[in-house]
Amino acid sequence: MQAKTTQAKSSVAEGTVKPRRGRPPKSLAGDVDTKALLIRSGLEHLTEFGFTASGIDRVLKHVGVPKGSFYYYFSSKEAFGKELIASYDAFFSKKLDAFLLDESYPALERLTRYVNDAQKTMKKYEFRRGCLIGNLGQEVDSLPESYRSILLDVFLGWQQRVEACLHLAQKNGELSASANCKQLAEFFWVGWEGAVSRAKLVKSHKPLANFFNCFLASLPTNFT
Amino acid sequence: MQAKTTQAKSSVAEGTVKPRRGRPPKSLAGDVDTKALLIRSGLEHLTEFGFTASGIDRVLKHVGVPKGSFYYYFSSKEAFGKELIASYDAFFSKKLDAFLLDESYPALERLTRYVNDAQKTMKKYEFRRGCLIGNLGQEVDSLPESYRSILLDVFLGWQQRVEACLHLAQKNGELSASANCKQLAEFFWVGWEGAVSRAKLVKSHKPLANFFNCFLASLPTNFT
Repeated sequence: MQAKTTQAKSSVAEGTVKPRRGRPPKSLAGDVDTKALLIRSGLEHLTEFGFTASGIDRVLKHVGVPKGSFYYYFSSKEAFGKELIASYDAFFSKKLDAFLLDESYPALERLTRYVNDAQKTMKKYEFRRGCLIGNLGQEVDSLPESYRSILLDVFLGWQQRVEACLHLAQKNGELSASANCKQLAEFFWVGWEGAVSRAKLVKSHKPLANFFNCFLASLPTNFT
Repeated sequence: MQAKTTQAKSSVAEGTVKPRRGRPPKSLAGDVDTKALLIRSGLEHLTEFGFTASGIDRVLKHVGVPKGSFYYYFSSKEAFGKELIASYDAFFSKKLDAFLLDESYPALERLTRYVNDAQKTMKKYEFRRGCLIGNLGQEVDSLPESYRSILLDVFLGWQQRVEACLHLAQKNGELSASANCKQLAEFFWVGWEGAVSRAKLVKSHKPLANFFNCFLASLPTNFT
């Protein structure tokens, strides 16, 4: 922590690095933690309210950071949003991998276990928190244009994980060899985002369960 | 028009009706049209940006109505939102009925025709406009709590129309008699909202087409 502080100060003094915008925080000692806190609080607010509704102000107030100090941590609101997206993607992809790469279960059961866990998580947060990427995707036209391809890439990354899981199900004979795994993975993820949104609306896990039951039943097996 | 103006003025004068809030518009002659314009512009902005992002200010600016006059037309922002939802529901339910009750086609083809039309409509507006109810549902936690059940009722109304269409498909032998039409209607609508959101994100009809193809293929027939 101390090393980072010293480096930041000396860079500015030597003029080799453009000084950061914004009022410096009163004490630099905790700046890394403050940045992490800003990201964590940003994620909480954005998954609950969306980007435009939550606003940076609410996040700053929650963390107790003066508005003038915000630009010490992030070059712009747009950059802050991008870090939030990257942070959420990293967290969520890791979670998906933990379920979909878990060799203790057959492929389709791994997906079922992820879905069950998601239901529990939404219930834990009283169905107030949805999917950050889904929230942002919904309001993409009022966000910086650069977010569009970033959000899509995140979705594609998650879909590829499901696609790989479906390919494994084909290999295991759980899924018909003629199934188009890429299309089915998109079908799953597009519909799943709709189900998360509906679950938030009705404050119940039932839309998630109904969507997944119908999805599972729709998968072509070798017997159909 | 004139009658309405006179009545409004005399009610206030007699003290029988609580005067409306807000600055009266300079001329009352066009107040009905102005209200309709506010609703139309509200719908345009909300389908594109969502409720919190679009804000009333943007709508008023677009219509050219001073902010102080807004309360002449609507008792509150919340009431304005409710009228927008009701107006959108009326418009959309009529559209759905036009397709799903069209006796010139078998049941599942009616749903296909609706889906094709929706793709054309989204393309026409360059995939900027989604579903007002889906947008509001996504941000329901930052909206007046009274909206939650209203939005859900709108969805249920649309689902019932799809459910009736699926029942007809059962009757015609297009769909297996063992299919649970209520569950499938929710499966369709929940997933369809996700597909509309994704179509906005990627600015393409493909997510709509892929979702519907997978949905149609998933329907149990008498031969499976």
